[in-house]
Amino acid sequence: MFDDPHLAPRAANFRPLTPIDFLTRSLEQHPDRPAVAWREHRWSYAEFGAIVARMAGWLRDQGIGPGDVVSVMLSNRPEMLAAHFAAPAIGAVLNTLNTRLAPDDLHYIVTHAGARIVLCEPGAAGALDGSGIAGAELCREPGAGEGLDFFSGPVPPLDIRMPASETQAIALNYTSGTTGRPKGVVLTHRGATMNALGNVLALGLTRISSYLWTLPMFHCNGWCHTWAVTAAGGMHVCLDKVEPAPILDLIARHEVSHMCCAPVVLYMILDHGGPAAAHPVLVVTGGAAPTPTLLEGMEARGFELIHAYGMTECYGPSTFNDPGPAAPGSVEERAAGLSRQGLRHLTVGGVRVVGEDGRDVPADGESIGEITMSGNTVMAGYYRDPEASEAVFSGGALHSGDLAVMHADGQIEIRDRMKDVIISGGENISSLEVETVLHRHPEVLLAAVVAAPDPKWGETPCAFVEIRSGSALDATGLEAFCKEHLTGFKRPRRFVFGVLPRTATGKIQKFALRQRARDEASS
Amino acid sequence: MFDDPHLAPRAANFRPLTPIDFLTRSLEQHPDRPAVAWREHRWSYAEFGAIVARMAGWLRDQGIGPGDVVSVMLSNRPEMLAAHFAAPAIGAVLNTLNTRLAPDDLHYIVTHAGARIVLCEPGAAGALDGSGIAGAELCREPGAGEGLDFFSGPVPPLDIRMPASETQAIALNYTSGTTGRPKGVVLTHRGATMNALGNVLALGLTRISSYLWTLPMFHCNGWCHTWAVTAAGGMHVCLDKVEPAPILDLIARHEVSHMCCAPVVLYMILDHGGPAAAHPVLVVTGGAAPTPTLLEGMEARGFELIHAYGMTECYGPSTFNDPGPAAPGSVEERAAGLSRQGLRHLTVGGVRVVGEDGRDVPADGESIGEITMSGNTVMAGYYRDPEASEAVFSGGALHSGDLAVMHADGQIEIRDRMKDVIISGGENISSLEVETVLHRHPEVLLAAVVAAPDPKWGETPCAFVEIRSGSALDATGLEAFCKEHLTGFKRPRRFVFGVLPRTATGKIQKFALRQRARDEASS
Repeated sequence: MFDDPHLAPRAANFRPLTPIDFLTRSLEQHPDRPAVAWREHRWSYAEFGAIVARMAGWLRDQGIGPGDVVSVMLSNRPEMLAAHFAAPAIGAVLNTLNTRLAPDDLHYIVTHAGARIVLCEPGAAGALDGSGIAGAELCREPGAGEGLDFFSGPVPPLDIRMPASETQAIALNYTSGTTGRPKGVVLTHRGATMNALGNVLALGLTRISSYLWTLPMFHCNGWCHTWAVTAAGGMHVCLDKVEPAPILDLIARHEVSHMCCAPVVLYMILDHGGPAAAHPVLVVTGGAAPTPTLLEGMEARGFELIHAYGMTECYGPSTFNDPGPAAPGSVEERAAGLSRQGLRHLTVGGVRVVGEDGRDVPADGESIGEITMSGNTVMAGYYRDPEASEAVFSGGALHSGDLAVMHADGQIEIRDRMKDVIISGGENISSLEVETVLHRHPEVLLAAVVAAPDPKWGETPCAFVEIRSGSALDATGLEAFCKEHLTGFKRPRRFVFGVLPRTATGKIQKFALRQRARDEASS
Repeated sequence: MFDDPHLAPRAANFRPLTPIDFLTRSLEQHPDRPAVAWREHRWSYAEFGAIVARMAGWLRDQGIGPGDVVSVMLSNRPEMLAAHFAAPAIGAVLNTLNTRLAPDDLHYIVTHAGARIVLCEPGAAGALDGSGIAGAELCREPGAGEGLDFFSGPVPPLDIRMPASETQAIALNYTSGTTGRPKGVVLTHRGATMNALGNVLALGLTRISSYLWTLPMFHCNGWCHTWAVTAAGGMHVCLDKVEPAPILDLIARHEVSHMCCAPVVLYMILDHGGPAAAHPVLVVTGGAAPTPTLLEGMEARGFELIHAYGMTECYGPSTFNDPGPAAPGSVEERAAGLSRQGLRHLTVGGVRVVGEDGRDVPADGESIGEITMSGNTVMAGYYRDPEASEAVFSGGALHSGDLAVMHADGQIEIRDRMKDVIISGGENISSLEVETVLHRHPEVLLAAVVAAPDPKWGETPCAFVEIRSGSALDATGLEAFCKEHLTGFKRPRRFVFGVLPRTATGKIQKFALRQRARDEASS
C-alpha cells in the first residue's frame, strides 16, 4: 500500500537536486554577506547574484539554451565563479578549459564538446582562431572599458530553468586520461550537489568561512568548491596568480580559513618566508603526500594540512585524511600518517581497493589493488565515448586506474598509477599523450614517458627514447619538436636515449623505467 | 548528445539515497568511537552495529520483509535507535508510537498502519490486548534476563537490502492533525537522508558531538537526529526520564554538546537550579518562543538557544533561527529576535508565507499568511488517505496550516495555527479530536477546544461547552468522561460553560474563544 499512486513523488515533495539552489538560498538568506573578493573589489551575495543574472541573460540572448555547451577559458575571477551558476541556470552545460592549453588541445576540446561559445580572458580569444568556435572576451575588470562587462548594467530576472531531471549534465570537464586525447567527463546536477555537500561537511565550511582560490576553478570545477562554498554561504577570495606574496597578502586581508592546492604551492609559500598567518588556515592538498619538512614548515606558518584523493571522474575529492590540529606523534610520525589519502566523505558511495578478481584486497597496508569508486559522486560517463565509459565502469564501479593499499583503519594509500598519469604541479599529464607526440617524430623508434620525482612540481615527465639506427637525434632536437606540439607543462624535462626494457611479451617495462627515472633525478 | 544511453544512471554512479548508508560509513570508518550511552552502559559503533544486526536478523526471522510495517512503542533506549536502522535495512517501514497513547489511539494506529509486530518496553505489551497485533517485549536492560535481548548473542550479517527506489517509504509517523483521528505521515529514504544532512549542517554536528536525547525518538524520528547524529559519527546519549537531575548529570558525564526539547523542559532545568554546565550546550527548541527570562536563565547556565520550526509532515525541523553565541543586543532584544522561527536549512526546497490567492505575502513582518513548504524534505503523503494528501498538497506545496508573517530578513514568525493544534509539552493535540470526544457525551450540545497559555506546558486544552437545557453536567462530570476516552495530556485542563460565540454563518468564533482562554488563564 506504500506504492499507492497518491504517495508517488510530486512537485511538492520532489525537487531535482541542483547546486543552483545553493546560490538561490544564499541570495535569499544573507544577500548582504560577502560572496566574492577580487583585486580591490568585493561583492555581496546580492551583487554576485546580479553578475550571475547578467551572464545568464547574455547567454540566453546569444541563443544558448538547454543542453548547449558553454565553454569558459578563464582564471579564477568572479565571472568564472558566476559561470558555474549562470550556465546551469539556463540549462546549459559548463565546459571549463585549462587556461594553459596548447592550441591543438584547445581546438580539439571545443570541437569535441561542440561548444556554442567560449568566454575568454581579455586578449585571449585569438587562441580560438581556426577552431570554428567564437570567443567572447571579458572586460579587464569592473569599469575597465572594452569587453563583456557583467559587473554593471541592468539586472535581468535570473529566471532559473530547473533541470528536468537531476541526472541532467551540469558540467563537461576534459581530462588527459590514458588514450592521449582528452576525454570529456560528464557531471550531473545530482552528483555536483552531493559532492559539494560532502565537501562542506568534510571541510567544515560555514557562513564565516573565507575560501582562497589557489586551486584553478577550471580544475574539475574547483573540486566542486565553487558550489560548496556558495552552499555554506562563505566568501570566495579570487586569486590572479598563484604566487606566495599575493597568497599571504590575501590570507591576511580576507582572514582566509580554507584553501586547496598541490604541494608545489605550499613549497613556494615555505620558500617565501615571512611571518606566520595570524589565524589557522586549513589546506587541502593532493597529488603528492606532504613530507615531514613540508608538514613541519607549514604548521609553523599556521597552516593545518588535510590530504585528499580524487579525480575529475569523481567530481574532485572522494577521500580526506584529516588528522586534526591535535594529532599526536612526532612530525615524522604525523607525516607518515598524513601520507595516506584517507576515508571517503559522507556522500561518496564506496571506495574500495580490489584485486584483479574484483575482490577487496586484505586491509593489511601491503596488498596492492586498484581503487574503485561508486555512488552518486561518480560521473555519468565520457562524452561521445561509450567504449571508454563501458571500460571504466566494468564490474559496476568506476576504475580509477590508481594502485593502492588498504590500511586496517580503512584509509587508502596510493602506491602507483596504473595509467601512468604524471602529476606535475597538480595537473595531470598523460604519458601516452606525450609518447604519441614523440612517436610522430620520424627518427623516433620507440618512446616511453614516465614520471620523474621533482622537488618543485612533484613530478615531471621523463622520456626514454630509442632512435632509429644511424639517426643523430638528440635532446635538443626532441625539445624543439615537443615545443611545437605540446603544452609547456607536458614537455619532458629529461630525455634518456637507449634500448627500452621489454617484457617477454614485448610490453615496455615501465616499472623499470620509473626506477631509472628516480635514479636519474637523484643523481 | 547528453541524453546518449551510455550516460544514463547506472549502478556505478547512482546509489539510492538512504540514511542506512550513514550507519554503514560510521561502522567502517570509526568502529571504536562511542555510538550510544545509556544508564551505566556504553556501546561503540561496532557494538551498536551488532545490536542493529541482531534486531534486523530477528525481524527477518519473524517473516518481516520489504514493505512490512514494524511498530515500536519505546522510550529513548538503544533498541529504539537501532530500530531506525534495522527496520529500513530489511526494507521494512518503521512506525514509532507515542509511549503515552491511550489504548483507543494505540489500537487505531497499529490497525491502520497494518503493523506486523510491535516492539514494546518490558511489561508494556498488555496495552495491545484486543488490538489483534502481537507485542514483543524487550529485556529490561543488558544482562537482565527475560524479554528480547539484542545486546548479546551471535551477530548475524547485517545483509542490507537497499531500497529499490530512494522514494520508498522508510517511516510511518502518526500525527494528530485536524480530523481528530491520527493521520499516518509517510516519509521516504530520500527525504530522511536530505533532512538529516540539513540537520547536521544546521547544528554543526561532527564526530565529537555528544547528543542528549531529551526529545522523544518517537516524535518524528527524533526530528531525523536519529540519522543525523549517526551521519556525523557522534554519540547518542539516551535518557530514560525527562527530569532535570538526570539531564544535568548526563550533560556533565558525557560532555553533551547538543540537545533538542520543548521550552517546558528548559523551564524544569531553570527551576532545578545547580551550577552551570562546564561547557556550552546547544539547545534547539520549538513549539513556543523562548521568553527573555528563559533565554537569560539558560545562557547563565551555559546553554545556547536555537529556535526551530517544523512538522512531522516535513521530517522535523525545516527552519532554524540561530543567532549565534555573540548576538548583540539586550536580552529582551535578543529574545524578540529569537521569537522568529528562522530560515530554511540547506536541504529544504522552499518555505513561503502565502495569502489565500497563493501569492507570497509582503515581507513586512505584519501581513499574515499560511506557511507552505516544498522540496525533498516534505512527506510522500498520508497513508491510506488520498483525500487528505490531495488537500494538504493543493497548489503544489505542503500547506502547514500555520499562520505566520514573513520578515524582511527572510525569517518566518508564527502568529497562529489555522488547524487549532494545541502544543502541550512539545506534543500536538488536535482540538478537533478533543471536541469529538466531548460531542460524544449525551448532554453536550456543542463544544470548542482551544489552547490556553500555560507557564509549564506552553499550552493546554481549554474546553468551551454548551450543554443541553435542563442538564446538570459540570466540570467534574466531563473530567471523568474525558478520562475514559482521552490520553492524559489531551484532556482539557479547564471547562467553561455557556453559549459559544458564532459568526453570521454559524461557525464558532475560535478567535474569540482563544482570547477568553487567555483571559481565564491570566485571571
